[in-house]
Amino acid sequence: MFFNDPKLQFPVRVEKPDPRFARALQQAIGGVEGEIRVCMQYLFQGWSARGPKKYRDMLLTTGTEEIGHIEMLATAVALNLENAPLSLQEEMAADPVAGSVMNGMAMKHILSSGLGAMPVDSDGVPFDMSHVYASGNTAADMLANVMAESTGRALAVRLHNMTDDPGMKEMLQFLIARDTMHQNQWLAAIEDMGGLASAMPIPNSHPRSEENQEFNYVFLGFDKDGAEPVQGRWSSGTSMDGKGEFTSRPMQPLGEVPDLGPARPKSGAQSEQESLAGRLKEKLL
Amino acid sequence: MFFNDPKLQFPVRVEKPDPRFARALQQAIGGVEGEIRVCMQYLFQGWSARGPKKYRDMLLTTGTEEIGHIEMLATAVALNLENAPLSLQEEMAADPVAGSVMNGMAMKHILSSGLGAMPVDSDGVPFDMSHVYASGNTAADMLANVMAESTGRALAVRLHNMTDDPGMKEMLQFLIARDTMHQNQWLAAIEDMGGLASAMPIPNSHPRSEENQEFNYVFLGFDKDGAEPVQGRWSSGTSMDGKGEFTSRPMQPLGEVPDLGPARPKSGAQSEQESLAGRLKEKLL
Amino acid sequence: MFFNDPKLQFPVRVEKPDPRFARALQQAIGGVEGEIRVCMQYLFQGWSARGPKKYRDMLLTTGTEEIGHIEMLATAVALNLENAPLSLQEEMAADPVAGSVMNGMAMKHILSSGLGAMPVDSDGVPFDMSHVYASGNTAADMLANVMAESTGRALAVRLHNMTDDPGMKEMLQFLIARDTMHQNQWLAAIEDMGGLASAMPIPNSHPRSEENQEFNYVFLGFDKDGAEPVQGRWSSGTSMDGKGEFTSRPMQPLGEVPDLGPARPKSGAQSEQESLAGRLKEKLL
Amino acid sequence: MFFNDPKLQFPVRVEKPDPRFARALQQAIGGVEGEIRVCMQYLFQGWSARGPKKYRDMLLTTGTEEIGHIEMLATAVALNLENAPLSLQEEMAADPVAGSVMNGMAMKHILSSGLGAMPVDSDGVPFDMSHVYASGNTAADMLANVMAESTGRALAVRLHNMTDDPGMKEMLQFLIARDTMHQNQWLAAIEDMGGLASAMPIPNSHPRSEENQEFNYVFLGFDKDGAEPVQGRWSSGTSMDGKGEFTSRPMQPLGEVPDLGPARPKSGAQSEQESLAGRLKEKLL
Amino acid sequence: MFFNDPKLQFPVRVEKPDPRFARALQQAIGGVEGEIRVCMQYLFQGWSARGPKKYRDMLLTTGTEEIGHIEMLATAVALNLENAPLSLQEEMAADPVAGSVMNGMAMKHILSSGLGAMPVDSDGVPFDMSHVYASGNTAADMLANVMAESTGRALAVRLHNMTDDPGMKEMLQFLIARDTMHQNQWLAAIEDMGGLASAMPIPNSHPRSEENQEFNYVFLGFDKDGAEPVQGRWSSGTSMDGKGEFTSRPMQPLGEVPDLGPARPKSGAQSEQESLAGRLKEKLL
Amino acid sequence: MFFNDPKLQFPVRVEKPDPRFARALQQAIGGVEGEIRVCMQYLFQGWSARGPKKYRDMLLTTGTEEIGHIEMLATAVALNLENAPLSLQEEMAADPVAGSVMNGMAMKHILSSGLGAMPVDSDGVPFDMSHVYASGNTAADMLANVMAESTGRALAVRLHNMTDDPGMKEMLQFLIARDTMHQNQWLAAIEDMGGLASAMPIPNSHPRSEENQEFNYVFLGFDKDGAEPVQGRWSSGTSMDGKGEFTSRPMQPLGEVPDLGPARPKSGAQSEQESLAGRLKEKLL
Repeated sequence: MFFNDPKLQFPVRVEKPDPRFARALQQAIGGVEGEIRVCMQYLFQGWSARGPKKYRDMLLTTGTEEIGHIEMLATAVALNLENAPLSLQEEMAADPVAGSVMNGMAMKHILSSGLGAMPVDSDGVPFDMSHVYASGNTAADMLANVMAESTGRALAVRLHNMTDDPGMKEMLQFLIARDTMHQNQWLAAIEDMGGLASAMPIPNSHPRSEENQEFNYVFLGFDKDGAEPVQGRWSSGTSMDGKGEFTSRPMQPLGEVPDLGPARPKSGAQSEQESLAGRLKEKLL
Repeated sequence: MFFNDPKLQFPVRVEKPDPRFARALQQAIGGVEGEIRVCMQYLFQGWSARGPKKYRDMLLTTGTEEIGHIEMLATAVALNLENAPLSLQEEMAADPVAGSVMNGMAMKHILSSGLGAMPVDSDGVPFDMSHVYASGNTAADMLANVMAESTGRALAVRLHNMTDDPGMKEMLQFLIARDTMHQNQWLAAIEDMGGLASAMPIPNSHPRSEENQEFNYVFLGFDKDGAEPVQGRWSSGTSMDGKGEFTSRPMQPLGEVPDLGPARPKSGAQSEQESLAGRLKEKLL
Repeated sequence: MFFNDPKLQFPVRVEKPDPRFARALQQAIGGVEGEIRVCMQYLFQGWSARGPKKYRDMLLTTGTEEIGHIEMLATAVALNLENAPLSLQEEMAADPVAGSVMNGMAMKHILSSGLGAMPVDSDGVPFDMSHVYASGNTAADMLANVMAESTGRALAVRLHNMTDDPGMKEMLQFLIARDTMHQNQWLAAIEDMGGLASAMPIPNSHPRSEENQEFNYVFLGFDKDGAEPVQGRWSSGTSMDGKGEFTSRPMQPLGEVPDLGPARPKSGAQSEQESLAGRLKEKLL
Repeated sequence: MFFNDPKLQFPVRVEKPDPRFARALQQAIGGVEGEIRVCMQYLFQGWSARGPKKYRDMLLTTGTEEIGHIEMLATAVALNLENAPLSLQEEMAADPVAGSVMNGMAMKHILSSGLGAMPVDSDGVPFDMSHVYASGNTAADMLANVMAESTGRALAVRLHNMTDDPGMKEMLQFLIARDTMHQNQWLAAIEDMGGLASAMPIPNSHPRSEENQEFNYVFLGFDKDGAEPVQGRWSSGTSMDGKGEFTSRPMQPLGEVPDLGPARPKSGAQSEQESLAGRLKEKLL
Repeated sequence: MFFNDPKLQFPVRVEKPDPRFARALQQAIGGVEGEIRVCMQYLFQGWSARGPKKYRDMLLTTGTEEIGHIEMLATAVALNLENAPLSLQEEMAADPVAGSVMNGMAMKHILSSGLGAMPVDSDGVPFDMSHVYASGNTAADMLANVMAESTGRALAVRLHNMTDDPGMKEMLQFLIARDTMHQNQWLAAIEDMGGLASAMPIPNSHPRSEENQEFNYVFLGFDKDGAEPVQGRWSSGTSMDGKGEFTSRPMQPLGEVPDLGPARPKSGAQSEQESLAGRLKEKLL
Repeated sequence: MFFNDPKLQFPVRVEKPDPRFARALQQAIGGVEGEIRVCMQYLFQGWSARGPKKYRDMLLTTGTEEIGHIEMLATAVALNLENAPLSLQEEMAADPVAGSVMNGMAMKHILSSGLGAMPVDSDGVPFDMSHVYASGNTAADMLANVMAESTGRALAVRLHNMTDDPGMKEMLQFLIARDTMHQNQWLAAIEDMGGLASAMPIPNSHPRSEENQEFNYVFLGFDKDGAEPVQGRWSSGTSMDGKGEFTSRPMQPLGEVPDLGPARPKSGAQSEQESLAGRLKEKLL
């Protein structure tokens, strides 16, 4: 169950409203790197968590924090939309530099939301909940979270570099700091479970002896001319999970050319795709 | 540039075709954990790779392998659809157990693809390319790849547990082995770049001194009653990136209650949302 | 800013787990009539609210309640998935009635979420945030909310009628009661602003005298043979906003047949679509 | 069955073609507030209408009108695209103000449609038919229609405010007038069925005595500190459906902390998530 | 402008309602092969048609017919849902064969539409308007229409083969006949414009001499071992547009290995991706 | 199975990087007319091909070529993003003409991909795999391919007309040439199977005598006033498949007004929609 305090987690100030930066901020709300994604991801992972309860607690705790981050960003969008142009005329009449504002802003901020934030990305594409990764496997989930905070922090850094508004920069440095923590936090959770090597290969509950033993630690090459694939840490030495030894080699097909045979009668294919035998048989039935 | 060999990378055999398993296999083709996702993800990451060229090479190499995995799974789907029911009648007339096949299979396998594979998941939802994560940041991309192979291997294990067809089990144990390698491989690439701690916080090019120093290593609690948040590896000790010290504490709002003020005239709000002053001003212009 | 209590808003009990009901409950989580929709809709409306602050408060308050409803339903899904079949074999071996469970359940509950809830509807279609209606117009938003609670309550009633599990029925009667309140609540908010008639036509800030006065209160007929359209409360008497008088009549075209003229050269059309003059002019430039 | 007259329902004139306004008009075609949505919504509601036939008639009548509105807007888009720039060069060579046209217009109007309308919104996002609400419950459907016409009229007003082209303003004042009528019309249909209070809570066919009687008319607070929720018409007095009395109070959790227990073997979780007993049992089977 | 007759274009009778066939019919409404697609495609093509007006007339005429086809199918869905099970219990109690109905039917027909049709496919995936192809090029559009009617007729044939209800079979044979006509009709339109060879390569307005003359009529092979590609009508003889001579040969790369160089500072990449020079330069600015 | 050569199929040079052209090129990668679509379409058609094996070979061959086309375009996007503005300030400070670059470029190229290509269209809408048409019917598939290459070539021509960069023009003239070949190639495949007339009506395996013989070659009119429909090659003469004779006539409804009857109790409708008899019956059960 959830509760609310009408105050924001961290101050949100905008000194020079810029409708184009409002558009850019949408990526941090409804983009695949954005806050709706991590918020819903942590909450759904927590609600479905099976196993040790502390991970559920941690997931719901940070999921709750993220609701407040969406709120901060939504507020920042609304504040950046103060004084946005509402007509093509008022904008065209302006000087050329300022005159480009409407071209660069999100038109749906005028037409759909009435100068407020939307759950869409910086191109107005609505967030699609299939990006909420909650696999039921704790290690996979924690990795998904580290990764989400990595793209999230990259986005926050890019937004920080895009603006020179002091209020926006301060807010973004706070969000960047939280992403630093969260990257560390989810990795710490894996450490807490025994460490990444122990967790791998994910899921570690599948009997390792059953998987194909010839292909589980070999870096395969697919060079057209059969050359050895590019070498690196991945082609020799102990594997990262400590359970195998890396090798490498060019791959050759081990299977055959598939032959699906003729199409079945009454399956909607062309007559030419059906075998004569098949058609005869069908008519006799 | 790419080339083709009509033979498969690994043998695909189906002893007892099961149209319901054909449906399940679709998740490994067009699901968010599936092969189209990793294939396109590695290729797009490679095509956009800036920096050391060996990572580009490795990405394109494994992306090329994954095209062949889609091919193997598409073949497996088609083979499992041999003898699938084409009418509700032939199915209803069957014995009750077998009679449930059409209910459990993918109806679009009959209606749309004519008994072949489709780029959709096990519920017939088409794959959406926004799941191809290519951030331009090599470390974030490699983490996205480890994570993709983790959910991918979990899916392959679940599929393996769902069937008892020997051919399908053999194919899946091959794919499981490749996922083991690929989890290790992408992590090895991070090691190759200097290791995970060195890479973090991602992006490591943002000056760490500029991010908010009060909140970058603290696990914040959001308990309704202000309780200390759940403790673990994430709440004390050195942070995973080795650059900070974990602490924890309950969070309180640092910002104010936002006040967006009245709606602007001509913005499509209700009159009651607009200020009197605003309306007067608008009329004078 | 938001806070969490690990306890649920209302008890969630499942006496007889049914994986097919888990699938049905997904509609109340990730369907367009579901709780993610109302939760996000109220929060985004609140975060973007301009005008009297009490509506913002009310929106955030009830938006916060709805997070807890998603949590209840996610818990109910997980509990209904206890003992779900994991393989086609264990299921096929069962008696015919029970044997149909896997056919009717959501396959992604096995393959993707590991027996937990997902932000998708009962067919596995992910929730799309474009269903979060927040228009910046308070009256339109409140109507959107009454409507959302109407389809939401219809869905809860249908789910209630679909099961005979006492725990599930009790939970659903609680959710049905909350939907009763919320339907009343959003309508009360419109009353609080002055009432529906006063709010209409939405937006009421557009000068009514400027809209086309011939067509703003007439019910138009489009019968092929020019018959008078079906009569009712909408064809005579005072209009619902009290600002007009309903009439009705068959409609005839008032515009002309559009003629877009020939295609422009270099616009990618066929030569046959371009005018001779246009092609000549283009060649001379 | 449907019929066509090649003439438009109302004149569509564009005096000063503006490709950027063509983009804005797309919102009224393929946006969630647009005409495809209401057209398909009324038609599908009509085709599925059970109960008194006059509502079906009314729905199909107005659904038919809306096809003609899409046609008017599609024509307006095409006319606004006359003389749109086809190359970046011709545009960059122009004066700075006019030079921004290509930046602000919809690039797919050049690349995909060849200077014609598309079933997409002002950001080029295709219309998604899940926005067609047809619930099988007449009252819920009528409310959905009032709401659709509310956001539709808000959009038309915003478009009207964005342009100063006399032809476009005239067309939009016609569409605004029709939205006025349609808001009134769908509300009149509810009146015709007995009125909104009688219809509520929707669906009114669910026995009211069965829903949870403690929570069906209480406005619940979720303030972090347990404060009384914001007061208004919704917290005291007779409820809007006339069937209850509004009260209010802070909410406390009534449920427990959920415990989903350990993960099942063979469900794709990590070993650490599985119980020892569970694993032993699985091995014995 | 459009008009309506409340009667159907062709009789729709269902003798033995089957909720599972209702689900299958959804593919013909909201599937990519369905009637919403062709309806909207012909209308949008017509509304955007530039060039000879008769094609616009023909497109709007047949687009109008297709609205009535959606109506017929929506009626067929509703009639097939008579007596559909509303609860898991009533269904589980039934005999095994009939008992599988709820597993095979569309759950949203109960939960979302109240036993009516929806604009979704047979898996409940909503129709996405990006499938409405209207390119502004008449020949491309007509080909898109022939193709749409081909997949449409294949779908209708598959539906026909799936049922033995006489009323449904009669309706489908009517729709199959209309698809026969429409395939012929759109091809006849191309003939009317001068024929397919004359129209090709589409768009025929691009100066043929400017396209790369070495690669416009050669079938290229991409065999891993450099083998000659598979021969057929496409590898020798006059090309189908009569403007070239088919040849074939294995392809070799003509381009170089791309090198995108180091990442730019402040672009959110890892430090390791940036060049030293680049970082120095950025600091000096 | 697939192989890779790190070199490109054809040289990709950009003389004057233009971030706005990078955005336009995205349409050729992730638009519905783009290369991901044809690549995946040919591969999936090949993987599911039943019948003569040479068509499978041809499909996989050209599908393999198309992977290399995505690669070329992705490289072109990255090269056009060299020197793209990273902040609103650096751009606003520029002269007005150049200053509009950020407004016209794809903001996700900065925020999401770090100056690389994405699998999205020119508006940032991700490619949706439902556009991969693979019907299991060879003739329908080949037509889908001709059509895809038609819109693809129209797009390439439009891109060519949009730029004056010599490198980009050379690359596009190569792609235009390949589209010329591919249009011819797929049509040649139909010829190879016996020709278009023989293939029609698709699917030609459905017994023609069973389809409705009154409506399979008649062009129907839907003029409101019953006028004869527009005449052309489609209204008289031998049909394109050579199997019928075109006629034309105005259509009248042959069906009745549908009556779905009252709503069933417990189906979530309003009481007013239910019949008295129905409600009584339900209570007695």
